[in-house]
Amino acid sequence: MNYPKGTNMEKQNTTAKQIIYGNRGMNLENDLNITNEYYRDHDLALVYKKPTPIKISKVNYDTMKITEAFFESPSTTDYNGIYQGKYLDFEAKETNQKTAFPLKNIHKHQLKHMEAVLRQQGICFLIVRFNKRDETFLLFAKDLMDYIKEKDVSSIPHSYFEEKGFLIETKYHPRVDYLKIIKEHGGV
Amino acid sequence: MNYPKGTNMEKQNTTAKQIIYGNRGMNLENDLNITNEYYRDHDLALVYKKPTPIKISKVNYDTMKITEAFFESPSTTDYNGIYQGKYLDFEAKETNQKTAFPLKNIHKHQLKHMEAVLRQQGICFLIVRFNKRDETFLLFAKDLMDYIKEKDVSSIPHSYFEEKGFLIETKYHPRVDYLKIIKEHGGV
Repeated sequence: MNYPKGTNMEKQNTTAKQIIYGNRGMNLENDLNITNEYYRDHDLALVYKKPTPIKISKVNYDTMKITEAFFESPSTTDYNGIYQGKYLDFEAKETNQKTAFPLKNIHKHQLKHMEAVLRQQGICFLIVRFNKRDETFLLFAKDLMDYIKEKDVSSIPHSYFEEKGFLIETKYHPRVDYLKIIKEHGGV
Repeated sequence: MNYPKGTNMEKQNTTAKQIIYGNRGMNLENDLNITNEYYRDHDLALVYKKPTPIKISKVNYDTMKITEAFFESPSTTDYNGIYQGKYLDFEAKETNQKTAFPLKNIHKHQLKHMEAVLRQQGICFLIVRFNKRDETFLLFAKDLMDYIKEKDVSSIPHSYFEEKGFLIETKYHPRVDYLKIIKEHGGV
């Protein structure tokens, strides 16, 4: 499973190497958090990252401190919310590979969740950042499913993102303006 | 703040009294979890309870065990999802009071969140169970806000739920069929 990035643990007990790794991993998540905050502040959309699911096994009731807990695998995507009455749902991932996005980054039950969202007529997509190319793509879930179902694949080539996906402009505010793509191509 | 109910901690290190309390507190949450599972299994709606937000401060990286963490106050409502393309958002609470629902059960930022959902034209509501009456009401957020804004109140009387809310039938499957109210009165 993928352990969650962007939690406090990475800031507190890490080596220098881990900090670099942690920061690198947090870039897209940070950008999206700032973007979603911008959308909320301007009443453009209401989108949040869901908290990481954690299984709590021991609690000190005097201090309400959790003393033992474990990470759980998420059963849905990380982000959801509303845009003009419509339901939005997406997963966001980074990769350091240049030529393809490895599908091991997405859990099977997350793909199932995305299919269920499509059946309910939600706006569902994947945001992938190719770190070494400095490119961030939005790929609609329908196009993701089309590619996965056709072949027994372990990754999606960068060329498919170029062909079917939409490059998201990275700017100052909003940082990763994915709503622009939704407005223009999301059928809203 | 309200500490989360229905987490594992209540099952593991508790006295008999706490177990009874825990179970009582978990009834509505359990009923809603089962209901949402039923909706998902039948492709009627896709609604999840969000994980409890937890701030992690210490992790053992060898075992990936969290050894110190704290509960955080939720900034949104507990439940959201999609119903036929539309965004659903709600909070669910129980009360042991017979004549009124105390508003201290809902955080201020949760009310702000509900207002923001309404501005985005989402379907937003509150589910309140009056344990001692064995009644579960759905009150649309607009009616909730109307009542709160008119007066400086600390609770909502049971009679207001009778007047403006909708009694949710409790049955075997789905347990708490709130979608029925949404279909009939939610403007979908």
